[in-house]
Amino acid sequence: MFLKTSNKMSNKRRDFIKKTALLSLGGAAIPQFGMANSKDNNSNSKIITDLRPKVLFFDVNETLLDLTAMKKSVADALGGREDLLKLWFTTMLQYSLVSTVGRQYNDFGIIGAAALQMVAKNNGITLTEEDAKNSILGPIRSLPAHPEVKASLQALKDAGYKLISFTNSSNKGVKTQFENAGLTQYFDDRYSIEDIGKFKPHTDAYDWAARKSGLNPNECMLVAAHGWDIAGAIWANWRTAFISRPGAQLYPLADAPEINESNLKLIAEQLIKLK
Amino acid sequence: MFLKTSNKMSNKRRDFIKKTALLSLGGAAIPQFGMANSKDNNSNSKIITDLRPKVLFFDVNETLLDLTAMKKSVADALGGREDLLKLWFTTMLQYSLVSTVGRQYNDFGIIGAAALQMVAKNNGITLTEEDAKNSILGPIRSLPAHPEVKASLQALKDAGYKLISFTNSSNKGVKTQFENAGLTQYFDDRYSIEDIGKFKPHTDAYDWAARKSGLNPNECMLVAAHGWDIAGAIWANWRTAFISRPGAQLYPLADAPEINESNLKLIAEQLIKLK
Repeated sequence: MFLKTSNKMSNKRRDFIKKTALLSLGGAAIPQFGMANSKDNNSNSKIITDLRPKVLFFDVNETLLDLTAMKKSVADALGGREDLLKLWFTTMLQYSLVSTVGRQYNDFGIIGAAALQMVAKNNGITLTEEDAKNSILGPIRSLPAHPEVKASLQALKDAGYKLISFTNSSNKGVKTQFENAGLTQYFDDRYSIEDIGKFKPHTDAYDWAARKSGLNPNECMLVAAHGWDIAGAIWANWRTAFISRPGAQLYPLADAPEINESNLKLIAEQLIKLK
Repeated sequence: MFLKTSNKMSNKRRDFIKKTALLSLGGAAIPQFGMANSKDNNSNSKIITDLRPKVLFFDVNETLLDLTAMKKSVADALGGREDLLKLWFTTMLQYSLVSTVGRQYNDFGIIGAAALQMVAKNNGITLTEEDAKNSILGPIRSLPAHPEVKASLQALKDAGYKLISFTNSSNKGVKTQFENAGLTQYFDDRYSIEDIGKFKPHTDAYDWAARKSGLNPNECMLVAAHGWDIAGAIWANWRTAFISRPGAQLYPLADAPEINESNLKLIAEQLIKLK
């Protein structure tokens, strides 16, 4: 019932991540999952279930799509200040949640443009609302997939997995993104939090996606390249696979994901082995 | 019933802020507040009520206390990388909301330390969990008040205002902060979101503070130096006064605050004029 895998994480991140991923899967209520061996906390291994999740949900931006072109466009809008990109992206994520906890909703791209205006002003950069929007909304719709993505999605489909995209972008936005990146054919469905009006990682967003697909939370697995998305999914009792793309960090105060690899190919290989 | 004031904002921020502050005060339900003249959208003035709020709620960090010493300590922990401070602070705010929407709660300082570890790792800086905590939790407890704060709070008290602090810091944290900064005596009460377990700007936090003080939301005014705090308070139907300290920006997608000045002295002067 259990598969003991060697832990691929070699960096020190491991030091401050709790190693009780299975506990968060509602293990007590699901006898076949059981409990991780907590005595094993200081070893370099962990125990995961070898049962397949019933659906794989994929975050889109950065997880599947390469944001490089959008980052270049935004850096241009910031007068070449590439050093401000991470601050802009983090401010956008912060304000997506500011909106959600304030019972408001705007398109993710509109929030991104507002965040860009704030970062620009704080750095003495003049940027009109229209220029801010154009710098984001143009390129975000035509991003290419990361190089390993298509083959990995095809391999997962061939292995019998059902794939659903699950994004903070709008319905129209992700439809256009997938058409332009050539990803439409790989997915059984596309979910956008636009339908519920609460951005990930709100627990309600994961609950909604699970219910919409007719599953219990612990039958869902999120594949994502953002620590906050992984944390939110774990707190919603989902299973998780983290793609540790450059610049991505897990949240130290959340449990560890079940799978943690540097690209989707390596994650797919692990998932295909499950029964 | 109305006071027409000249608008003190001279920078271009004004261009993209909606000018319907009064609409957000629940004007329709409060006849004596009435409605702002929406035809006046392109002028350089706005209409505010001249009625006093029943309680002034003060955000603490940055609003009342000068964070310079903490920023220096955190920059030291980041190997002198002062350019990363804004990213760290924004990441802390982002993850405070990641926690809240994920139905989790940790002390704000603990979240700050976790965010600091994430920023450090993304920039190749080695930082232990203990060092991250010490760099924040030591100095944050002993920050001085901004220079104009004590006299302004005294002037508001002398004018008959009831003052309550309302912070994302813990109860113990703000008690220590106020003792060390010599602010305890100015406040009728201290509220911490620790009691409700949801960080500002969650609507529930403002609702809770209003209810705890026996007031309707539109009888409360928040004084804060953070755009997200002002936005959240407005969305919760509070009145608001923004202190535009250096590096602070209003959120372009929220209504404008009733008062917007560069320090607390100027805000107090306007508040004392109200009836």
